[in-house]
Order: sequence, then structure tokens, then C-alpha cells
Amino acid sequence: MNTNSSNMMALAPNTSNKRETVCIFGTGDFGRALGHKMIQCGYPVVYGSRSTQISNLIPKDAEVLSHAEAAQKAAIIIIAIQRQHYNFLTPLAEVLRGKVVVDISNNLKLNQYPESNAEYLAQLLPGARVVKAFNTVSAWALQSGALDASRQVFVCGDDMEAKQMVMNIVRALGLTPLDQGSLLAAQEIENYPLQLFPMWKFPVFLSLGLTAFFFLYCLALDVIYTYVYENNNFSFFIAITIPNRICPVMALILLGLVYLPGVLAAIIQLYRGTKYRRFPDWLDKWMLCRKQLGLIALAFASLHAVFTLVSPIRSFVRWRTSKGIIAQALNNKTEPLDLTNAWLSDSYLALGILGFFFFVLVGITSLPSVSNSVNWREFRFVQSKLGYVTLILCTAHTLVYGGKWFLSPSAYRWYLPNIYMLSLVVPCAVLVVKFVLIFPCVDKPLTQIRQGWERNPKYSE
Amino acid sequence: MNTNSSNMMALAPNTSNKRETVCIFGTGDFGRALGHKMIQCGYPVVYGSRSTQISNLIPKDAEVLSHAEAAQKAAIIIIAIQRQHYNFLTPLAEVLRGKVVVDISNNLKLNQYPESNAEYLAQLLPGARVVKAFNTVSAWALQSGALDASRQVFVCGDDMEAKQMVMNIVRALGLTPLDQGSLLAAQEIENYPLQLFPMWKFPVFLSLGLTAFFFLYCLALDVIYTYVYENNNFSFFIAITIPNRICPVMALILLGLVYLPGVLAAIIQLYRGTKYRRFPDWLDKWMLCRKQLGLIALAFASLHAVFTLVSPIRSFVRWRTSKGIIAQALNNKTEPLDLTNAWLSDSYLALGILGFFFFVLVGITSLPSVSNSVNWREFRFVQSKLGYVTLILCTAHTLVYGGKWFLSPSAYRWYLPNIYMLSLVVPCAVLVVKFVLIFPCVDKPLTQIRQGWERNPKYSE
Amino acid sequence: MNTNSSNMMALAPNTSNKRETVCIFGTGDFGRALGHKMIQCGYPVVYGSRSTQISNLIPKDAEVLSHAEAAQKAAIIIIAIQRQHYNFLTPLAEVLRGKVVVDISNNLKLNQYPESNAEYLAQLLPGARVVKAFNTVSAWALQSGALDASRQVFVCGDDMEAKQMVMNIVRALGLTPLDQGSLLAAQEIENYPLQLFPMWKFPVFLSLGLTAFFFLYCLALDVIYTYVYENNNFSFFIAITIPNRICPVMALILLGLVYLPGVLAAIIQLYRGTKYRRFPDWLDKWMLCRKQLGLIALAFASLHAVFTLVSPIRSFVRWRTSKGIIAQALNNKTEPLDLTNAWLSDSYLALGILGFFFFVLVGITSLPSVSNSVNWREFRFVQSKLGYVTLILCTAHTLVYGGKWFLSPSAYRWYLPNIYMLSLVVPCAVLVVKFVLIFPCVDKPLTQIRQGWERNPKYSE
Repeated sequence: MNTNSSNMMALAPNTSNKRETVCIFGTGDFGRALGHKMIQCGYPVVYGSRSTQISNLIPKDAEVLSHAEAAQKAAIIIIAIQRQHYNFLTPLAEVLRGKVVVDISNNLKLNQYPESNAEYLAQLLPGARVVKAFNTVSAWALQSGALDASRQVFVCGDDMEAKQMVMNIVRALGLTPLDQGSLLAAQEIENYPLQLFPMWKFPVFLSLGLTAFFFLYCLALDVIYTYVYENNNFSFFIAITIPNRICPVMALILLGLVYLPGVLAAIIQLYRGTKYRRFPDWLDKWMLCRKQLGLIALAFASLHAVFTLVSPIRSFVRWRTSKGIIAQALNNKTEPLDLTNAWLSDSYLALGILGFFFFVLVGITSLPSVSNSVNWREFRFVQSKLGYVTLILCTAHTLVYGGKWFLSPSAYRWYLPNIYMLSLVVPCAVLVVKFVLIFPCVDKPLTQIRQGWERNPKYSE
Repeated sequence: MNTNSSNMMALAPNTSNKRETVCIFGTGDFGRALGHKMIQCGYPVVYGSRSTQISNLIPKDAEVLSHAEAAQKAAIIIIAIQRQHYNFLTPLAEVLRGKVVVDISNNLKLNQYPESNAEYLAQLLPGARVVKAFNTVSAWALQSGALDASRQVFVCGDDMEAKQMVMNIVRALGLTPLDQGSLLAAQEIENYPLQLFPMWKFPVFLSLGLTAFFFLYCLALDVIYTYVYENNNFSFFIAITIPNRICPVMALILLGLVYLPGVLAAIIQLYRGTKYRRFPDWLDKWMLCRKQLGLIALAFASLHAVFTLVSPIRSFVRWRTSKGIIAQALNNKTEPLDLTNAWLSDSYLALGILGFFFFVLVGITSLPSVSNSVNWREFRFVQSKLGYVTLILCTAHTLVYGGKWFLSPSAYRWYLPNIYMLSLVVPCAVLVVKFVLIFPCVDKPLTQIRQGWERNPKYSE
Repeated sequence: MNTNSSNMMALAPNTSNKRETVCIFGTGDFGRALGHKMIQCGYPVVYGSRSTQISNLIPKDAEVLSHAEAAQKAAIIIIAIQRQHYNFLTPLAEVLRGKVVVDISNNLKLNQYPESNAEYLAQLLPGARVVKAFNTVSAWALQSGALDASRQVFVCGDDMEAKQMVMNIVRALGLTPLDQGSLLAAQEIENYPLQLFPMWKFPVFLSLGLTAFFFLYCLALDVIYTYVYENNNFSFFIAITIPNRICPVMALILLGLVYLPGVLAAIIQLYRGTKYRRFPDWLDKWMLCRKQLGLIALAFASLHAVFTLVSPIRSFVRWRTSKGIIAQALNNKTEPLDLTNAWLSDSYLALGILGFFFFVLVGITSLPSVSNSVNWREFRFVQSKLGYVTLILCTAHTLVYGGKWFLSPSAYRWYLPNIYMLSLVVPCAVLVVKFVLIFPCVDKPLTQIRQGWERNPKYSE
């Protein structure tokens, strides 16, 4: 591999401060927007177009030539045309030999074609040095300068030098180039801008479904039941009271669902006696969306906290409080302090506050910049240890809060349990199984399996 | 050192674990601080100085030689002198030929000189491989190790190899090098450390001005008016009551101002029938500081939330509550629950909580690390869709809160409206115009314009 | 631009979309996990093993050969064996000449060996191009795909080309390579995964110790004293009342401790008359953990805020409130509004809220992604100016809150001061000294010293 005759300096802009000419094939919206921006940043721009008539849509400082002429004027050619028309480039293969050809195209659907557009382009132009870039930036953003969003431009290509040239242009336009490696990454780069929170879809729909179910459940028990049997119109409960019942329940269930797949995975591994067989598909997917489930749980927990704190300001609560006090005053007596009550009330509040505190802590470490600055051991410590502390505290919070009602028949309207009882099922199950799993007699084989040991090596053949 | 026959490998420190010698021109504060740090990290340091007398300020392990001698001892020369004295380097041009010359200088003002210091240096020393680096680090930080701040060192230069050598030193000093491309970036790098939140200036001054105005307005209506006409001394209102009136008003107005320029831009584009003419300058600037306006609005909203939650603890509120209860008790009657009141109170609280929740969500996505990890489509979804949901919820919160007072004459002290009525002007205007803009007959031409279509192509010539 | 004789292109995967073969030495857990993952990502994998018998633990698509044979099949050899067994590689030195050899090993302790494993490997194989990588990823994470954690792979090596090849593989596996420079960085990279929040150790233990002390102190004064002398059982205070006394005290003390070392450093520099002598070791260490101290203080402050906001919901507080109201009602009188009280209550709440607000602001700027996007001047502004504003507001909050009790003998149970009085010592001391330091007659020499001036240059010789 001889590197001595090359040199890297050739690719850097010379010190005379002049930017090299850039050629853009295609005068569509994105081609024009990019040209505008480049001229603004000091690059001479030449458009390659079928008709060389100067269209007034094209930035007025740009030249318009035929494709072949334009390509000869520049070392970098940006292909701002649709993939379907790429084949018109085939006759230009000779002109583009050795040139840096930048593919900026996007598709309309994920994995629309078997190979990425950039790879397809590289096949059409064997001599060209194809670089994928700019596809994550929108024409509108380029035009309006509204780039508070992602300034990141993913760049990939097989030729380091060509990639460097493109990355320099990206930087000059005020954007941040991110080298994604060889052209193989083009497929992923082209799929990237088409996604809309793909990992969030399942957790969000699950939460919406559960929330709707619990809302109807509470509506029946708290509003309709009271209206029918006690003749009280508590319809305003649907603004705060019922949401504040649903939020903690959702938070606890979702938090349980974050730790359930880990526990299931451990059981499966113990049962199979090996870690070298894939988990069932649903478990794999579930494990991959734990972070999202956890963050939605945190959102519900935060809403619960605010709904709770706001309660003394509520008109209804103030009315209820004064009713109680007036009743005592009119009866001429003061109730003594109920110590048990004081203990219960203070402990479930304290448990809830601490649980929420740890929950927020775990949430902060899942911010990308924070999780990138901790190592694997630290991340495990926070997400696993602190996560379980959170789960234990929140479960205890719910148990202490509702404890005295479990055995009281009045808590079962229409023979249905209150929803906080339902919410305890998942987290309690997780905690019980986890408790079993940390017993040495279970933990030891599990650790061995995770270190690569196999119980029945013959099986896996 | 002959570099033309080398060879990227030459630039890596050889495996014998020895760091290459670094030469520093200039024994000023930063030169000494850098030398200290480099010696600490294992680099042999040679100072180039006019007088070769060993000054005791210089780290004692460093050698001090004449400029020419010092330069010959090292492959990397760091120029730690002021730009005004760069011309003394001209006679050394031959000695510095092929060497890596690092410009670390800063200016006192933005764009003080027509060209950046590094480019000026490159002109003075045509044979040297000039790299810009280290200008964003302070001598004091280097010395004291107090580098919790930005460990980022921007590096730029036309010679890849030279840049790599400098970036290796940066890493060895425990700092993070960031390749900013060719020497053209030097101007920006030199301007960077001179800025003090440039994008925040206008939003902050606007907020301070509005806050001052609303404070005086509230002071007049709530404290002075009450004192003059009702003979009540409510001077303590300036601690919590008035701030808690100003904060929500400011939050709502600023949130409206975040979405106003987008709506104005759409109107201008519809009127002009093209997107290829620049917006007026003030609109461009306004659009660029939307993020800052939004974050300040979020800060006011958070303060409003805390001020509201704290109210049951306030001495005044507790006194008012007990006064009300005692009055009822002494009259021997209990007021029944006012259902309308309960509904109003609960719904404006619920609307406020939800609005605040979405506001925080939008705020979190504007954290750099989060907005970098979402693509353009996701960012638009959060900032635009969720942002409008926030605006609608917050406006509704204010409308429901104040609804019943709009028509009550007692709400107009001195014939002036209460400030929350003022706060509704901007957000309501934005929402009404936005509502018009999403009608298909308006939305369709706008979408076409944004995709590059022009109504009167002849005009733009 | 002639590129055909160069060539960087050689190292890029060719456009035929085939991944190059990778050889893995060692069939231990990590070797197998990495092989599995690589095969999944399209890399042909060859294992080099002592016994070439096909073990069923090895991914079934992989070939297993002798070390020498395997090495000949690939350009990249990953060494997945323990450092203790590296010497068996010596006979293979000739086969590995020119190959890219990737060291992925970790140690069990920090700085276990004098030189890093990768450097040791480079010494054993003088002709190989050694790259350090993959040591920060766990086998379990690779296997299970649970890579929500750090996807960062630190890569270092003296050969740029070899490093690029490894970084391309890292990217292909869906991980993020981070170039850390030459092989000298290997020591640090190997130490990285062994750390468990090293900077947090001292601040956390200090906080735990102080918290325990204050807990016992409060338990004695608030629970035991009341029980013994006033015969009241306030045991439930340990759930909320006492934590809510400890949290603000801890927050204030820790916040004081964040700014104390800066003040001490200034005094030391003034006394010594130079900045070129190292601070005592304890001061250096203290300064380095200021961020952690500040964040723990913020955590305590947040808990204090929530504990305070929650108080109107507490059973005990509601009982106490109604007792007070009923007593007034039964006595047939309404107490008038106590203006002083209203002022005091509102101002300490407002001071606390503002202090907390600025505290959170300072906390947000210490998120890695935020502090990376501000320059040194902006960071100093936030951390120093806003930090002192926070300290002043929080101290004032405490002073106003407790003001009237300082002179009251009933506040001194068992002749001991209340803990909030103790909490004022550190912050008041810091503020007083800082106030002295900003006087021009003190500030001027200090500034000169920090710019490199020395009072007694002869001393430092």
C-alpha cells in the first residue's frame, strides 16, 4: 500500500481563501436551495441542466451549463435529481471519472430499493468517487436558516479524500458533518429522515390503550357509580381526580413492564441453560423499548406529582376541608391527632417523594449526553440498581397508600377492585421473581450462563 | 524534517512512548501555562524567546533558546504571542518551512481584523503548515485544572497531517479536539470565545422590559389602587402575588411570540407568491431567536407553577382561608359545593398542568443532545405540533381562568384591563391566523410555494 | 488531482459490498459474542484457536483454524484473550507483520500493569499495527442488543489507516467509534470501564456522613426532646418533617462548599503572591469535585422543594390547621392579618423560589451537552455569576426564614442551636470573604497574579 506519493494537502482548500467551484446537477427545489446557500457562503456554483436557458428561479450568481460542461468546471458534482432519473448519468460516466459525486437523494419509504441510492449511483458511475451527504437537511431549513434543529449531516463514502472535501463544504455551510464510514452506511442514512420515533410507537400506543381503559374504569366507579347509587354529581372528577388516579397507576405498571423483560430473560436463560440461543422475537423487541417505556412512566409519574401538589388549590378540596372543619367547630370539639394516620400519611408521601426522586435521577441518565459520558458499569449501576430502588419505593408508596382498603368491602364497588390494586400486580410480580433470582442458588448458575457456560452443550449443536 | 516522503505513520508518536518535543514562542501568561501543562503531560518543552536568559517564571524543566534554535528542536511550534508582533516571524520563515505552526491567539473584539490571525500567520509563513487551536481554553483553566467547563478545543488547518499532530497533543492534555475543517474556519473559531450568549441578548432584554412594564402595571392596580381606594395595605403582594401574575402573562406572550414569526412568514410568502425572496431582516432575526424566546417562556411558566403550588403555605392565604371558614362557622352554616366553580377550578388547573407538561416536553427536545438525536421530521413534529398543542392548552388555561371576569366591570380598575387579558392578545391572534392557514384553500398554495412553485415568475427577474 | 496512485481508497471496503474477513484469536465469552455480532452484520469470521476442533459454542457460520492459518486469512485480527497469555503470540510475530491487530482486553484493577495492554502487545509484535478498541462494550450487551447504554467505542492506535479500518467495523456493528489519538491513550481507555463514578465518591460519602449527623441531631432535638420534656409523640416526624429540615441544610452547606475552595485559592494566591505554585493537594481535589458537590446540593434542594410543597397534604398539617381555626371559631374571634408575618412568609418563599430557580439553571448548564455548547466566557458567567446569585438568594432565604428565632431562647433546646443556624456558617463565611475579595484594593493584585505577575520573583527560584 503506497501512501508516500499522495498527499493529503492536495485536498485542502488552498490558502488563497478562494472556495472551489461546486457543480449542481438538477434545478429542482433542493438543488436551488443548496445553490443559494452555497453562493451565500462564497462558493462559485455551476448548474448542470438539460436546457441551458437561464431560468429566473436559479440564483442569479450561478452559471447554467449543459451537464457535461458544468461537470468539467468543478471537482465536486452534487446530484440533486430523483433516483428514477439517475440512468441519464450513464453517458456522463467518462466526464465524471475521478470526480467527487455527491448523492443527496431521499426515498419516500423505508428500504424502498434493494440497494441504497448512493450505491446505485456508484454502480452507474464506476470511476466516480461517490459520497452520500445532505439528505438529512430539508430545503426549507436551508433556505430559511431555521436550523435550530439538527445541524447534523451524515456523510459516508469509500474515498476518504472525497469525503473530506464534502465534509469541508458541510462545515462551511454552518452544518456539522458526521462521518458514518463507508458507502455501506448509505442505506441507513437514507432511511434515517423517514423515521418518526420508530422506537416510541409501541410504548405510546400501549400507554394510550391502557390509559383509555383505566379512564373508562374510573369513570364507571367514581362518577357513574356515585351518581347512580349515592346521587352525587362528581362529573368534574374527570378533570383532575380521575387523571390523578390513572397517572400513578400507569406509571407503576409501565415501570413494572420495564423490568419484567429482564426477569423473563433470566428465567428463559436458566431454563435453557445457555445464553447462545436467541430470545423469542417479542422479548427482543420488548427489551429494546425499555428506555421508552421508562420515560413514559416517568412522564406519568411527573403528572401524578403535579396533580397531587395542586390539590389543596382545588375548589372542591377547599370546600371539603372547610366542611370538615366547620362540622367540628359546630360540634364544639376538636379531634385529637390520629397518630397512625399521621404515620401512614407521612410515610406514603415520603416514599412517593423518594421514589420520584430516584425515578428522575434514572431519567436524567438516559439523556443522550449523560449516558454517553458514563461507562457501561456506571450505566448498569444507575439503570439497574437505582431502577430497582425506584420500583421498590414506588410499589411501597402504593401499598402504604392503599393498605387499609384492601380488606375493606366498601372499596369494591360493583365487586371491582380499585385501580391502584390492579396496578400492583406487575410490579409485585417483578419484585418477587427478582427476589428469588438474587438467591445464591439461583444467581450462581445464571451468572455462569451469562459468562458463556452452557448446561447441555450437546443440545446447541 | 522532510514530510513529502512520509507517510501518516510518521506523525504518530512512535511506540517507544516518548512524546515529541514542542516549541513555544513567547513566555507570556498563556505560553507559560501551556508549557507547564505540557511538561506535566510528558512533553519536552523548548521556549523560543528574545532574551535567552532563564526567567524564573518559566517552568523549570523547560529549555529557553533563541527563536531560531528553539524552532529547530521541534516539529511543532506554538506561537503564544500577540498578533501585532507576528511580523517578527518573517525572518524565521525559512526555519519554519515545513513545520507545524500553531496559532493560539484571540482577538479583543469580534472580527477585529479583515482576516483571521491564523490566516495572517499563514500568509507571513508561506512554507509553514499553520494550524489554529487552543484559543478557546483559558490559561487560568489550564493552570488550575478547573476544566469542568468546555474541554473542547476547536482545531482547523489546511494540512491534515499537521492537524492530526496537534489533535494528538490536545488529547494528551486531557482536552477534546474538534476538527473544524480548513483554515477558513479560523475566523469563526477566533470569534467564538468572545461571544456572551449572542442569541440570548434580544430575548432577554425584551423579557426584562416587558417584565418591568407589567410589574409597574400590577403595582398600580393591585397595591396602589387597593391602598388608595380600599385602604388595604397589600404591599407584601410584591413578593409573590404580583410575580405570580407577571410570570404566566410573560410565559403566554413569549410563547405567542415564538409562533408569530412563522405565521407572519407564511403570510408574506402567500402575498409574494414565492419563497425565493428574502424575508425582511427583522423577521429573519426573530426566527433565529425563537428557541431562546421559547426557553425564557418556559422559565416563566416554571416559576408560575412553583409560585402557584406554594400558595397554600403562604401566611396570607392561610389567614384568608381561615377567615372564610370562621365566618361560615360563626354564621352556623355550611355553603354547599358550587358545581360550576368546581368544574371551572378543576379544568383550568388541568389545562394548565397539561400545557406545562407539553411545554416541558418541547423544552427537553431543545437540549442539544436530544435535538441532535432526532431527525428533521421528528424535530418538526415536536417543535411544531406539540408546540401548538402547548399554545392551545395554555391559552385555554388563561381563558377558563379569567373567563368570568371579562364582562365584570369590577375587573377594570382605573378602566384598565387586568394583565391576563393583555396576555391573550398575541396567542389568540396567532391561533386565529394559524387556524385560517390550515384551511385547504390557503394551505395548498402555501405548500406549493414552499416546494418551489412561484406565482409570478416574471417578477423575480 | 491524481488519486489513482494514492491510496486511502485501498482501505475502504470495495464497492462490491463484501465485508472483509475478520479473524478472532480466542474463543472465550467475548470472542464468541463479538463473532456472533460480526457474522450478524455480514462479516466472514475466522477463529484462531489452539485446538481446531469445532466447538459448538462457536457461531456455526465461523471457521476455526490454527492461529497462524486464521491470521493469514484476514487483514484484521482481534485478540480476545487475556493479557497473561499474550506471550504465546510472539512466535506469530512474522505472520502478524503488517496486519491490523486489535487489542480488546480489560484489566481487573486501575493501572494494574506499568504499561497498557495494547502497548504491551505492540512491543511483542513490532511489525503489527496495533489498535485498541471494543474494551468499553460488554459481551452481554453485544449479545442481547441491549445497547441503550453507551454505544461509544474508544479507538486508539498509531496507524491512521488501521484505525480507520477498525472504526469502520465499529460503525458497521451499530456502535459509535471515538478516535482517542495514538496508542498512548490506551492506558486511559483501559482504565475507563473500571471506574464507578470516581469523581462522585468523596462528595457522596461527605453528604451521607453529614446527613447521618444532622438526622441524629434533629432526632434528638425534635423527637426525643419533645417526647421527654413535652410528652408529645412526634415520632412520625422522621418521615417528612426531619428530612425537610435536613435537605435545605445540606443543600446550603454543600452549595457553600462549592464556592469555598475558589475563595481559599484566591487567599492562597494573594498570600503567596504568585499563581505558579501548586495548590495543596486537598484543595486541588476539592476544586475538581465542585460540580459533583453542586449537583448533590441541587438534589437536596429539589427534595426540600417537594417536601415543602407536599406539606399542605400531610395529615398532621391539616390537623394542626383545623385545630387552629376551630380554636379561633370557638373563641368567637378572627385574628386580623399580621402584616409583618405576611411579609416575612412571602419574602422567604419568594427568595427560596428564585434561589431554586437559579440553582436549576446552573444545574442545567452542567449537563454535558449544554456545557459543551457554551464557550468558556459563557460557562464562567453562568457558573460563577449565577452561582453566586444562587448562593446569596439561598442564604437570604434561610436568614429570613429563621431570622426571628436567632435571639429567642426557646429555639435553643438543650442549649443547642437549630440546624439551620449551623447551615449558615459556611455560606456566610464564603459570602463575607468574597465580598472582601471584590474590593478593588484586593481584586487588583489578585487579577495581576492571575495574569502571571509575581510579587517576589526571586522566591520561586
